[in-house]
Amino acid sequence: MGFERKPKGLVVWFTGLSGVGKSTLARRVKAELEAHRAVEVLDGDEVRRFLSADLGFSKADRDANVRRIGFVARAVARTGAVAICAAISPWAAARDEVRALAEADGVRFVEVALHAPLEVLTGRDPKGLYAKAIAGELLHFTGVNDPYEPPRNPELRLDTSLTGEDACVAAVMRVLE
Amino acid sequence: MGFERKPKGLVVWFTGLSGVGKSTLARRVKAELEAHRAVEVLDGDEVRRFLSADLGFSKADRDANVRRIGFVARAVARTGAVAICAAISPWAAARDEVRALAEADGVRFVEVALHAPLEVLTGRDPKGLYAKAIAGELLHFTGVNDPYEPPRNPELRLDTSLTGEDACVAAVMRVLE
Repeated sequence: MGFERKPKGLVVWFTGLSGVGKSTLARRVKAELEAHRAVEVLDGDEVRRFLSADLGFSKADRDANVRRIGFVARAVARTGAVAICAAISPWAAARDEVRALAEADGVRFVEVALHAPLEVLTGRDPKGLYAKAIAGELLHFTGVNDPYEPPRNPELRLDTSLTGEDACVAAVMRVLE
Repeated sequence: MGFERKPKGLVVWFTGLSGVGKSTLARRVKAELEAHRAVEVLDGDEVRRFLSADLGFSKADRDANVRRIGFVARAVARTGAVAICAAISPWAAARDEVRALAEADGVRFVEVALHAPLEVLTGRDPKGLYAKAIAGELLHFTGVNDPYEPPRNPELRLDTSLTGEDACVAAVMRVLE
């Protein structure tokens, strides 16, 4: 295949509730990796705007969005690059499907489950979304009035209310190396 | 940025009617490039299945599909890889939008306009789609009962009824090198 120089593709998939730190850690891990690897961050909000503007927040639509992110991540990782995905991705079956397709392509899949107690997240709430959801003004808000299925066997679990940002980055890097 | 070893990303965009040779040339060019570059082919039919199953063939839906392929192509090419796209992409404005976004990302965009006379395409017609469209059994079929806007300034134009497969591949490679 002539790919001696091509490293094995990698998908790092951050899953967890809004505000738990997915996008922040995705950017931090990208910064750590990009000195020696090509890296692309696929952020759930950005992907929704460009790829899934037609989709809402029903289970079917969320699963479709996760599948699309997975498709892009595989396309990136098949070239030998690292795709770092930051998406709530609340349903375990959709995440597992993305993993299976990546692994079938010879791509390593590292699922990082981020957690923080709801009272911590509602305390942070920089966009005021939890307040709106708790007040009933926002429906289908994961963790408040829409379900979240935690990963059963993630490569890494981090509680971002207990572990600082630098320590979280270091933990992810240890799993990747 | 630490990207000394990373080549400049590249999108090769084949546009043209069904049966004109987009997928075939995409695979051939991939085979030429992959000895020294990471390459990913984004085939219109495959992308539709995974990314755009919700979309039909109206102008708005075709443009949305082209935008999505462009999003994936940029994600691939930003890592320094080559994204080869094979999609009818009949509307010039949507193609130009994808080009502008790629170039804004520092990615080179090479548009390859494939053409063959309709009588040649209807003669090939391996899937019998032209026959159905001409019989009125298939609507929104580009080139028969749906418009196609040829590129105004593509990097390369090839008439696949006049130029053989090997010569087409060689012409694309000359533009890329």
